[in-house]
Amino acid sequence: MPDMNADPALQRLLHHYHSMPPVAVMQLSIGGYDGQRLQLHAPLSVHVNDKGCAFGGSLASMMTLASWGLVTLQVEAAGLHADVYVADSQLRYLAPLFADLDVEAELAPDARWEDFVATLRNRGRARTSIVARARLPGGGNATEFTARYVAIAKP
Amino acid sequence: MPDMNADPALQRLLHHYHSMPPVAVMQLSIGGYDGQRLQLHAPLSVHVNDKGCAFGGSLASMMTLASWGLVTLQVEAAGLHADVYVADSQLRYLAPLFADLDVEAELAPDARWEDFVATLRNRGRARTSIVARARLPGGGNATEFTARYVAIAKP
Repeated sequence: MPDMNADPALQRLLHHYHSMPPVAVMQLSIGGYDGQRLQLHAPLSVHVNDKGCAFGGSLASMMTLASWGLVTLQVEAAGLHADVYVADSQLRYLAPLFADLDVEAELAPDARWEDFVATLRNRGRARTSIVARARLPGGGNATEFTARYVAIAKP
Repeated sequence: MPDMNADPALQRLLHHYHSMPPVAVMQLSIGGYDGQRLQLHAPLSVHVNDKGCAFGGSLASMMTLASWGLVTLQVEAAGLHADVYVADSQLRYLAPLFADLDVEAELAPDARWEDFVATLRNRGRARTSIVARARLPGGGNATEFTARYVAIAKP
């Protein structure tokens, strides 16, 4: 496991997250990033609902943020500057999560970063699909998430 | 507009919301409830993202909570006791929201509360579909949300 604190791109991303008031209170940290898959972590105690498991809205936020962060990292890695927006999302809650929130996001199987970056560079605007999940401690997924994100180049 | 603070069911719901740590920090209030449509409000300043508009995860949480609250109120109004879970959701972000978050939830057009309550009473478990939206100040919707919720009777 590489030291996440040593990577300037991840430091910038974490700072970006914490600059948003609703995200600053989530106590999230970056669990890992290998260039393709971004992992976020947050403590259950901050996100627990009335049934003792993770609040559905927190899981939605975590997967939305992990996917947004992944797109943002790819835009930056390509040397581009763009605002990144979520356009739509589908979320399935498969099992209650009675543990810390560990989510990960990656490009959807039918999408390619090369296409996304080329379109953003050429047209100033591009769209891509991301998949994310929250892991159960014993294996399998608590939630599964698919979303489309739009990047719009900054002038 | 009726006085929301005078309704014991809404007082219980608000207390229920605030008992959840991730919800307590959202500064939400109940904007209205007419027996069919539940409205929630939260200040933009608490939910603002890096682009100055409402964070997508906060909008997802607000619509998830409004829908959950609506199902919970209907279960209680029927004299039943059940845990209410979100099963899945679809969310479309139509326009950025540069104003306070005003969301509302109601039963999906093809669903009936009578069927939901009867099934919950008879089988101890029932499912229904809810639609929710976040309103733009000038009219129209910033987001649209459809979700299925499951209620499981408490022993």
